[in-house]
Amino acid sequence: MLIEGHPSMELVFASANGQRGQTMRAGRREITFLGADEARLGDAALVFSALPHGASLEWVERSKKAGAKVVDLSSDLRIGNGHSGVPYGLTELRRKQITGAEVVANPGCYPTAILLALAPLLEAGVVEKGSTISASAASGVTGAGFTPRPDLLFAEISEDFRAYGVGNGHRHVAELHAMLIELGADQDLIFTPHLLPVARGILATIIVRLNHQLDAPLDLWREAYANEPFIELSETTPSLRDVVRRNVVKISAVNAANAKQPTLIVTSAIDNLTKGAAGQAVQNANLMLGFDEIAGLPL
Amino acid sequence: MLIEGHPSMELVFASANGQRGQTMRAGRREITFLGADEARLGDAALVFSALPHGASLEWVERSKKAGAKVVDLSSDLRIGNGHSGVPYGLTELRRKQITGAEVVANPGCYPTAILLALAPLLEAGVVEKGSTISASAASGVTGAGFTPRPDLLFAEISEDFRAYGVGNGHRHVAELHAMLIELGADQDLIFTPHLLPVARGILATIIVRLNHQLDAPLDLWREAYANEPFIELSETTPSLRDVVRRNVVKISAVNAANAKQPTLIVTSAIDNLTKGAAGQAVQNANLMLGFDEIAGLPL
Amino acid sequence: MLIEGHPSMELVFASANGQRGQTMRAGRREITFLGADEARLGDAALVFSALPHGASLEWVERSKKAGAKVVDLSSDLRIGNGHSGVPYGLTELRRKQITGAEVVANPGCYPTAILLALAPLLEAGVVEKGSTISASAASGVTGAGFTPRPDLLFAEISEDFRAYGVGNGHRHVAELHAMLIELGADQDLIFTPHLLPVARGILATIIVRLNHQLDAPLDLWREAYANEPFIELSETTPSLRDVVRRNVVKISAVNAANAKQPTLIVTSAIDNLTKGAAGQAVQNANLMLGFDEIAGLPL
Amino acid sequence: MLIEGHPSMELVFASANGQRGQTMRAGRREITFLGADEARLGDAALVFSALPHGASLEWVERSKKAGAKVVDLSSDLRIGNGHSGVPYGLTELRRKQITGAEVVANPGCYPTAILLALAPLLEAGVVEKGSTISASAASGVTGAGFTPRPDLLFAEISEDFRAYGVGNGHRHVAELHAMLIELGADQDLIFTPHLLPVARGILATIIVRLNHQLDAPLDLWREAYANEPFIELSETTPSLRDVVRRNVVKISAVNAANAKQPTLIVTSAIDNLTKGAAGQAVQNANLMLGFDEIAGLPL
Repeated sequence: MLIEGHPSMELVFASANGQRGQTMRAGRREITFLGADEARLGDAALVFSALPHGASLEWVERSKKAGAKVVDLSSDLRIGNGHSGVPYGLTELRRKQITGAEVVANPGCYPTAILLALAPLLEAGVVEKGSTISASAASGVTGAGFTPRPDLLFAEISEDFRAYGVGNGHRHVAELHAMLIELGADQDLIFTPHLLPVARGILATIIVRLNHQLDAPLDLWREAYANEPFIELSETTPSLRDVVRRNVVKISAVNAANAKQPTLIVTSAIDNLTKGAAGQAVQNANLMLGFDEIAGLPL
Repeated sequence: MLIEGHPSMELVFASANGQRGQTMRAGRREITFLGADEARLGDAALVFSALPHGASLEWVERSKKAGAKVVDLSSDLRIGNGHSGVPYGLTELRRKQITGAEVVANPGCYPTAILLALAPLLEAGVVEKGSTISASAASGVTGAGFTPRPDLLFAEISEDFRAYGVGNGHRHVAELHAMLIELGADQDLIFTPHLLPVARGILATIIVRLNHQLDAPLDLWREAYANEPFIELSETTPSLRDVVRRNVVKISAVNAANAKQPTLIVTSAIDNLTKGAAGQAVQNANLMLGFDEIAGLPL
Repeated sequence: MLIEGHPSMELVFASANGQRGQTMRAGRREITFLGADEARLGDAALVFSALPHGASLEWVERSKKAGAKVVDLSSDLRIGNGHSGVPYGLTELRRKQITGAEVVANPGCYPTAILLALAPLLEAGVVEKGSTISASAASGVTGAGFTPRPDLLFAEISEDFRAYGVGNGHRHVAELHAMLIELGADQDLIFTPHLLPVARGILATIIVRLNHQLDAPLDLWREAYANEPFIELSETTPSLRDVVRRNVVKISAVNAANAKQPTLIVTSAIDNLTKGAAGQAVQNANLMLGFDEIAGLPL
Repeated sequence: MLIEGHPSMELVFASANGQRGQTMRAGRREITFLGADEARLGDAALVFSALPHGASLEWVERSKKAGAKVVDLSSDLRIGNGHSGVPYGLTELRRKQITGAEVVANPGCYPTAILLALAPLLEAGVVEKGSTISASAASGVTGAGFTPRPDLLFAEISEDFRAYGVGNGHRHVAELHAMLIELGADQDLIFTPHLLPVARGILATIIVRLNHQLDAPLDLWREAYANEPFIELSETTPSLRDVVRRNVVKISAVNAANAKQPTLIVTSAIDNLTKGAAGQAVQNANLMLGFDEIAGLPL
């Protein structure tokens, strides 16, 4: 859908084994889904691949041979998941490696919200050594995909709320921890995702002990993200409504009252389907293909 | 409503200045709301008062003079809010002081979920000295009351999620911190409430650094709460659905993987309108009047 | 669940091929699901069968041979679906045939709401001959069952509303039309169901042309349903909230203003899982087994 | 917001007595609300007025004197509400009168959905003389406005559904009946609105008796609305999701099975805030000012 509105991209094919032969409306066009084996890779300059975990590597090889670049939306090629050499597509933190790259591993939705919020703190060296960073986050159900699972039925989700993957059990923990190390962190990160009765959006609430009190905490992000088109900083805490259908991260940071140790509460909101997936994929594709980074993306 | 099903209680009057003269169905009876000044305190053995903040003290005096006991649901008389001598009605932790008491301050909904989850840890002395306890919690909208505020309209709440009172700004922080001190804690507590698009229920997600790893963490709660009728312990994390319309707290505790410092993730769920308010009020009233503690309460 | 609270019933077994071996909590008991072939029919006085359409007849025969009565919740044995001789379990309209019966066909949820609303009108002969009765109804998603279908996922249902089975295409039309004929109607009935983003509840809105104006339309229902424990009549239109978790039908009837032909708008609400399914099944079982009709049922 | 994206319109002022002095983000601009008395009417070519009912007439006079055209979104000037001479802004049915007009009365949201669905049938003369047209419709809560009313709180709306204004009591009945007469109808129209637990969208389900069976009923609309940019016809019934955030009406028509009298079920969906309000207002303003009718409108 984003591609339909893109000034310099045109959709060559769409593939979905489960829906082979079915059609989808994208703007004014009708698109017919192909099986993965029918995809005409040679006709494409770049392929967005969102295959089940484990299937990406072969597809990336096929695409490369056919001369197509790849933005891979699976976790297979992401940092912390065993494959090295592929740039991690958290655009604002890895812009140089992504620009012109052949293959980019698009980040998970939770890591996008959490790492963009944490990076300026870690890079500034203000987080207390050896402390624990608590990142609790809540996601709309589209974060769990569109497979018809009994626990994702309306009657199960509505009027409910629960944590899952508790105790650092979520599959995004690998890329979170690997990126923390790249950012120079020695702190523990405890990640607790929750399932919200909303369709889309992620809100992360991050508690960080500092080694000294910051008088204007948001200034840290203002400096780190000066001129970033897709990062919004706010004195008031963001809500899902502020970011849904937009390719942005909205971040706020507040000092804790009544705490002996200086402590910051950072909140960060994204649309899991836009900045957390397809939007960031287009943002990366723009850099890989030499287009304007913001082309085709909803601000 | 709970009183209608209670074997030993009978409703004498209900008062609500804003709805004076209106009627409400409670089981098979019709009840007409009186103005607060019309209430026949002398006819009642016990009064449940849920007045706006600031108005409780005078009402408690009037009730005492008329010979009626009081369960006060406002925050006016709670620990940490300036009045001493009134037992804090977190029943499982203060049963002795509540039994037979004249006046009891019913706890806030968030503190009920958080303190019942934390008390066994703190009493066992296993929390790392000087560490930070992060308690993020999410509540259904009835926790914000029934005043018609623009931000509580369906069109504002549905498909949204946000934090509020960020940075220990919520009015429940006072009783949380005061009770932590009574429980012997020297740790910081960072409390971050969130507003959920559901009608009722609270889920608290609490991150605690330990001074040593616990092999079977839930055993701590099993011992502390042996024979408690309203506390449920679970190896799987609780969800709102497990507790709504019931006077229980459901608690789970899981060790964090991939953490240098032993760390526990404790989740705790209650119905904010039952164990978080009216249910616990009846539980306290039962103890104050010498009834069976579980009389009239939905398990 | 209703059976756990029933004073004279005890659950002997529960069977569910898809969940064979799994357990469920029912009040204080743990129940393990059996496969249908393992069910000990001989131990039971009455079987509630909710098999997929087409499978009921064989099961009823097995139960009869084993000496157990049957309340069948499928549509297989219902009026209009090809099998005769089995009483249609719309309790208030067929109490005599149900009392002491061996087998009863429990009605569909939509027909329960619509037929209990229409019967007094048709029996009084006040509906215009040859006119069209429009019954539009909306149901919560549990009416569509608990099979994980893509169109029942939270992300598909929330913030949406649509009609289905439009043009008398719904499988409940057969029993609706057959019962209308039994009630002496010559009118067309156009039934249009809709899918609501709520978990449970059905509201039917029925437009009926009359052969003469009724001054106090609700009096017709008051007479027809005098002393019925599960029928509530109301001058104000019912909402789902009034009936959810209760075994009642709530009915209202209002004359249309600005209409040349006297016309009545009848609204009728039930809980599709209680009066529309399990509750009415217990109500019927009570009559079949000689218990008090209201035993174990939530008013 | 629509105006911000319009190629030929620019917002001169926004007025809201209740929010005087507050600011709103519209695209890249900050807008400060004025009081109605501060509005600089002379600077504007056209004013969109959405005043409380009763206040429009005076405002229209002031605007005219100042040389500004007016699209009035209140019901004051609509057909059937006592004022004549002002074109009724149901664009597809009154395009000629709207083009170049000084003042246009923008229709109600329900009438937009119902009248655009009914007009081709009535103009073709295929509706049975003297029959009753039943139009049941359900609307998202934004149709009730943004005033903080207790019955519009999330906790009241979620998991509920109810009819209101039952018996032709809704204030939109006047314009519905007046337009039916203009379209040559002698039939009764029974309009029953319902309140949905969704933010936005209206679905109308309309039952119409015909004087003869139509083999391909949708052809009637295809002919009547050939080349209409904002009307979508569909063999499958529309859902809210198809139309939300778009300035379209989506219509389907299906013959009833099992009916003696040929009967059509017409379903019609709009976004109450777009084609049902602001979108149609811009569509009318485009015609009044001589712009392209589709300028600035989301298809």
